[in-house]
Amino acid sequence: MVVSKEIHLVKRPEGMPVNSDFAMVEATLNAPADGEVLVRNIYMSVDPAMRPAMTNGQTKLDRAMEGSAIGQVAASNHPDFPEGSYVLHRAGFREYHLSDGKDLSVIVPEGESLTTHLHVLGMTGLTAYGGMLVTGELKENENVFVSAAAGAVGSVAVQIAKIKNCRTIGSCGSDEKVDYLTNELGLDGAFNYKTQSIARSLHELLPEGIDVYFENVGGAHLDAAMGQMRALGRVPVCGMISAYNTKGARSEGVTTLSNMIYNRVTMKGFVVYEFFDMRDQFLADMRQWIAEGKMKYQETIMQGVENAPNAMIGLLQGENSGKMLVQIGPETE
Amino acid sequence: MVVSKEIHLVKRPEGMPVNSDFAMVEATLNAPADGEVLVRNIYMSVDPAMRPAMTNGQTKLDRAMEGSAIGQVAASNHPDFPEGSYVLHRAGFREYHLSDGKDLSVIVPEGESLTTHLHVLGMTGLTAYGGMLVTGELKENENVFVSAAAGAVGSVAVQIAKIKNCRTIGSCGSDEKVDYLTNELGLDGAFNYKTQSIARSLHELLPEGIDVYFENVGGAHLDAAMGQMRALGRVPVCGMISAYNTKGARSEGVTTLSNMIYNRVTMKGFVVYEFFDMRDQFLADMRQWIAEGKMKYQETIMQGVENAPNAMIGLLQGENSGKMLVQIGPETE
Repeated sequence: MVVSKEIHLVKRPEGMPVNSDFAMVEATLNAPADGEVLVRNIYMSVDPAMRPAMTNGQTKLDRAMEGSAIGQVAASNHPDFPEGSYVLHRAGFREYHLSDGKDLSVIVPEGESLTTHLHVLGMTGLTAYGGMLVTGELKENENVFVSAAAGAVGSVAVQIAKIKNCRTIGSCGSDEKVDYLTNELGLDGAFNYKTQSIARSLHELLPEGIDVYFENVGGAHLDAAMGQMRALGRVPVCGMISAYNTKGARSEGVTTLSNMIYNRVTMKGFVVYEFFDMRDQFLADMRQWIAEGKMKYQETIMQGVENAPNAMIGLLQGENSGKMLVQIGPETE
Repeated sequence: MVVSKEIHLVKRPEGMPVNSDFAMVEATLNAPADGEVLVRNIYMSVDPAMRPAMTNGQTKLDRAMEGSAIGQVAASNHPDFPEGSYVLHRAGFREYHLSDGKDLSVIVPEGESLTTHLHVLGMTGLTAYGGMLVTGELKENENVFVSAAAGAVGSVAVQIAKIKNCRTIGSCGSDEKVDYLTNELGLDGAFNYKTQSIARSLHELLPEGIDVYFENVGGAHLDAAMGQMRALGRVPVCGMISAYNTKGARSEGVTTLSNMIYNRVTMKGFVVYEFFDMRDQFLADMRQWIAEGKMKYQETIMQGVENAPNAMIGLLQGENSGKMLVQIGPETE
């Protein structure tokens, strides 16, 4: 038997979530029965997409929340998951996870840190990779704009665009992030949307217009970007974080969509599981790009499962640099 | 030599066009030289898309405006266009057109009226056909919503959806048009957006949601429809007439676009020339559907080239039923 602290959603948030929307609860798990595995969680991911799930009912009340996590097998009665091995699963927001093995996949790091499997080498990276290359149909030498470009998905998206020799710009929410995007990631331009006009910045930084707008924000960002899309432009819609804390997930009004007609623009929502069949190619490309220094990343790691709600709130307020993670326990025990 | 009255745009309209934005001018055309054709225009088309062209510079000031027209060859020095034959071209808004033949295509009616080549059998019909079947990827038995469904393009679009056994509903701007859509065209539902809530009407008439929204209006229509799109829904964007008379062609704000993400909705602007290579199949299908009574149409015909501005203004105010045309001269002379 093990006691596991876990985070429940106890109230559907109205607007920005607050701490009282969550509760920490202690659960007692049995030792693994035949065919079962007890996983001790190490890191969990905090994603913007968790916010709409709290409102639309996908996240159940009064149960441990869900989200990507990496843990180590603490005890096993399952031949595929020996004790000590690392596994990826969706049962984050808790210290321990008792599994029949069906939801686990083994991770074997090839020199890279464990955490990368929750971002650049994980769902976050695959989201950016598929969103850019499949949904966005990115071509060499195009003009690319990524919103929330210093975020976990955005920072991978902009680097893929640079790897494809695109003129690439990004928006972000602080001057420090502007520095990071231009000086560390080598973008051709970046701006702080909190202090600069989005439309004017786009016009100045991509005067010929936008071929691909990788959409993470929605609302005013989309209003400005859609007005500057070029012929046959594409808008892969990964997220709309600006809408997640409003009633009905409504964004600020977008008024420029008529530009889609004459410029024959395509706008397309996508979800990462569309790209699961590309995972081998994705991992090979990303590992090579990381090795070549072309794919950098930042992590913001908060400590302790009890801080998962704070990590979620901080993420929605843009306090993270790169991937927001929570460390639940030590990497080895 | 022939004197030809023609309509010029003399001022870029602000908001709804007014008569003083246009002028009627008399031009004198020479008799056709070797290789030339003199066309006496009979009917011309008035299209919503002409409105944004007046603002974005595509329509030049102080020159005869352009638009689809059908005329009869009045005099010819070109072997491909014998006197008396009917031709389709883009030099509407004038009584006569002197051409080198490169912009003319001969029309040979197979029993149908000449005017149908400006709507169901012409660009209007091809717009609806390609927009539904190619851009919209319409499948049998889907749930379909068409805005401006009593308009020239919309009324073809809804009938194609019915032919494909789709549950099909439409919006329009008068109760008479609601009657026409449900009683004449056999739609499963229709509503007057001027007196009914769009969102509530969609919910009542298509409670399971929308697979294909054929977009002619934009703004509040799109705001309501996007919120009710189903998984893998498509929004072929044909036009956004609600935005055409505003500064910068801006629509009312659309706030529901975050629904594109989880439902993986695709929204795509298109232009009719994308479908030119389908014209033979289109004509064969449409002639068959007309013969079977499955493709009906209405025409609103104003008389005299001098009324072309009034026809344009009336179209933008929704005063037409079906295709808005101007008759410039008699069918035979």
